Amino acid sequence: MASSKDFEIEEFNDWFNDIIFKAELADIRYNIKGFVVFRPWSVFSMSKMFRIYEDFLNETGHQQVMMPTLIPEENFLKESEHVEGFSPEVFWVTKHGDEDFEQKYALRPTSETAFYFMFSYWVQSYKDLPLKTYQRANVFRYDSKATKPFIRGREFYWFEAHNLFETLEEAKEQVLEDMEITEAMLHQEFAIPFLFFKRPQWDKFPGAINTYAADTILPNGKMLQLPSTHLLGTKFTETFNVKFKDKDEQLKFPFGTCYGPAISRIYGGLISVHGDKNGLRLPFDLAPTQVIILPLYFSTADNEKVEKLCLDIAEDLDKLGYRVRIDDQKEKTPKERFSYSEMKGIPLRIEIGPKDILEGVVTVYRRDLNTKEKIFIADLYDDIKKISQEFTDNLREQADEFFESKIVTVYTYDDLKEVLDENKVARVPICSIEMEGKACADEIKADTKGGEVRGTRMDYEDLPNEDAICIVCGKKSNCMAYVSKSY
Amino acid sequence: MASSKDFEIEEFNDWFNDIIFKAELADIRYNIKGFVVFRPWSVFSMSKMFRIYEDFLNETGHQQVMMPTLIPEENFLKESEHVEGFSPEVFWVTKHGDEDFEQKYALRPTSETAFYFMFSYWVQSYKDLPLKTYQRANVFRYDSKATKPFIRGREFYWFEAHNLFETLEEAKEQVLEDMEITEAMLHQEFAIPFLFFKRPQWDKFPGAINTYAADTILPNGKMLQLPSTHLLGTKFTETFNVKFKDKDEQLKFPFGTCYGPAISRIYGGLISVHGDKNGLRLPFDLAPTQVIILPLYFSTADNEKVEKLCLDIAEDLDKLGYRVRIDDQKEKTPKERFSYSEMKGIPLRIEIGPKDILEGVVTVYRRDLNTKEKIFIADLYDDIKKISQEFTDNLREQADEFFESKIVTVYTYDDLKEVLDENKVARVPICSIEMEGKACADEIKADTKGGEVRGTRMDYEDLPNEDAICIVCGKKSNCMAYVSKSY
Repeated sequence: MASSKDFEIEEFNDWFNDIIFKAELADIRYNIKGFVVFRPWSVFSMSKMFRIYEDFLNETGHQQVMMPTLIPEENFLKESEHVEGFSPEVFWVTKHGDEDFEQKYALRPTSETAFYFMFSYWVQSYKDLPLKTYQRANVFRYDSKATKPFIRGREFYWFEAHNLFETLEEAKEQVLEDMEITEAMLHQEFAIPFLFFKRPQWDKFPGAINTYAADTILPNGKMLQLPSTHLLGTKFTETFNVKFKDKDEQLKFPFGTCYGPAISRIYGGLISVHGDKNGLRLPFDLAPTQVIILPLYFSTADNEKVEKLCLDIAEDLDKLGYRVRIDDQKEKTPKERFSYSEMKGIPLRIEIGPKDILEGVVTVYRRDLNTKEKIFIADLYDDIKKISQEFTDNLREQADEFFESKIVTVYTYDDLKEVLDENKVARVPICSIEMEGKACADEIKADTKGGEVRGTRMDYEDLPNEDAICIVCGKKSNCMAYVSKSY
Repeated sequence: MASSKDFEIEEFNDWFNDIIFKAELADIRYNIKGFVVFRPWSVFSMSKMFRIYEDFLNETGHQQVMMPTLIPEENFLKESEHVEGFSPEVFWVTKHGDEDFEQKYALRPTSETAFYFMFSYWVQSYKDLPLKTYQRANVFRYDSKATKPFIRGREFYWFEAHNLFETLEEAKEQVLEDMEITEAMLHQEFAIPFLFFKRPQWDKFPGAINTYAADTILPNGKMLQLPSTHLLGTKFTETFNVKFKDKDEQLKFPFGTCYGPAISRIYGGLISVHGDKNGLRLPFDLAPTQVIILPLYFSTADNEKVEKLCLDIAEDLDKLGYRVRIDDQKEKTPKERFSYSEMKGIPLRIEIGPKDILEGVVTVYRRDLNTKEKIFIADLYDDIKKISQEFTDNLREQADEFFESKIVTVYTYDDLKEVLDENKVARVPICSIEMEGKACADEIKADTKGGEVRGTRMDYEDLPNEDAICIVCGKKSNCMAYVSKSY
């Protein structure tokens, strides 16, 4: 069975920038800062991810809409915390042709102020609730942090779900469902491990009661935020005057949540979590090419037979529904072609030489275990089926093992610093993730060059020992929090 | 078998606006002019259409990319005809937060000036050609014509394919492939008939050698342009300095084409072409709900049995892969529920009353033929399978028949006017669709309040009789052109 992912990518940043270029995932030469071009090898997988996610959002009772990209300034200005949080990042459309618009229009940085504007028309009665809607959209943020393809761009691609409920209880249940959706998609489908946190009060979405988010751990020990859910309460329904009549004919404000899985960023997490020193490793269902077939040329006499067998196998696999390609470039050595297929993350490689034909075997290299095996041609399709079914499980198992190895529980400030210095994530007792804990978190951040309190577990109450104290201020601790550097 | 679509929607405009509202397809109350919100019933079908198209573009060797939404003014200004054509329609981003950008950024009205900017990096050698790329994107045009949901909006949703070839011949072949793709998607999948025209020189895309386009005919006799293909030649490769070394090491400019199927507009065409006085009719695979089951309540005693049977059938159909729903609203009369399911375009309705159970039958209404039939429960699933397979064929057959009945060949100016007055499309001899024919086209347009020369058939050379003369100027005619009013 699968061995654990027994390496760390030492120079993760170099590895990441290198693979973006070499595997042709994105092109950073487009002439607007922070805007990249996504290339076919990544777009194919992202398109699959969009479909898988879309189907699951539909299955969980969400209905898809398409909102305009532009949001009038008058909508945007309505919710003050939201304005304060997003204003510096907004791209503004001010002109058409040579003419100025009477008011500016924001390129949506997120779409609460479009959805809630419409909700005021769509919601009248308790019969209209719950209302679970979402869209697939590109959003725009003039982020002042350094941009990085997939991980942080000024335009990115996501789903945003906006839901309304009669009660706060139901809205809180939606947060749990969002965590389950994240588990089903990120962990089960894409094999990306994560923890689902309740974020500290000082790190929440502008306009939310609470923010919850899934963080994964990259090979350099930094956490990367993947989907987040915001419990909005009645903040936006009050602002946009969204009201419903309950069963007793009372007018009330419904309670809102929003959930935002960014596919472009999840892809960035996916390649980072699964990649190794030889390049990409992609879950079987997401790989643009799933099986690559390499004819090995030794003697010209046998080339024809080899090529014929390659073609036959490719045709069969195609009929069986695999995405298959033959790499018959004679100008490249076998080793060059091996490296290329591994770098691109193609799950299976079939190598066929003249001797193999005599023996009735082929060599199968699998990217999940980094192993080669001779397989009888008679068994090939059964074996490939078996491998295809366990491939993503193996990636997940290795990723989970690595993920767990990166988290260390400690009880002192010195140990915390050591954990962060070792590029790991610390689980530590702190005083609070309410606003009164902010001073301690600020101290950690300043002192450790970026160590952040990411929050507490959302899925269960992770209490410290009874005598545990906050590693910073020494007050009695009431929660175990996770601290890490992050993107 | 299917009777022909034996009606015309007299007041098509009212019908269209009405169905948009009643079937909850789009909401025009969003507070930016020309920007509408697309609602779940239309978005579900459009999402299917996007997938079907995407799969087919992949199958025909196109590779998907994702380009930024913003295009720097410097890119946009490079091609003068392109600038002249699109400048009045461009939305400009000029600010982020409170700060002005150094140069303006266009919200892409179309993306030649982004793709060709990147092509200059991606194309070096004949080995890089042909290059067939596309993206799924939203585009923005400040159109001064009256906006109409789906048909003409200031933001719309399309695929745009941008292809490069070594030779003009190959580029011309791509125009043919684009026509075949249009046939496979619009006609075969969505059951929308069309003619593929070569547009007159005065009606081509800014920057193209020739424009080709698929026009369908709406119930009011107006033509609606659906996907178009532009033969760009070396216009944009020269402008953006995209060069390749051919086999003889000569530097050359490749030849370009682009193809733009707008899914939101195709959906507008689809509902118009298939709809009838009772509402929508949707191709079976695109319908959000494919089968609706109505329990008919007569005596309270039997309600439970009826509801049980409805649930059992719904469960079976769900397992068989149909999208099925039960409409058990007791507060509505059967007639109200019938009308609702027809208005929404649900392909099949199963009605079940207490008597039916005794007889072992159910009533099946099919929206393609507008007929009701008693079917033995034992045969139900086989029958539904059969109906599901022929449903879209029936819609296509009816749409084709209607389409053909709307086209009339005439040889005089008076007859042309009569055809247009009857809300039909005329096929007439004219002098030319090169620039020398423009005066005649202008005269037709002014004289008939909007009759436009749409072009000549692209798929074959549609020559007039030897002695035919241009219906306007009386010169010898060298082509049969189509004239119609349009959107």
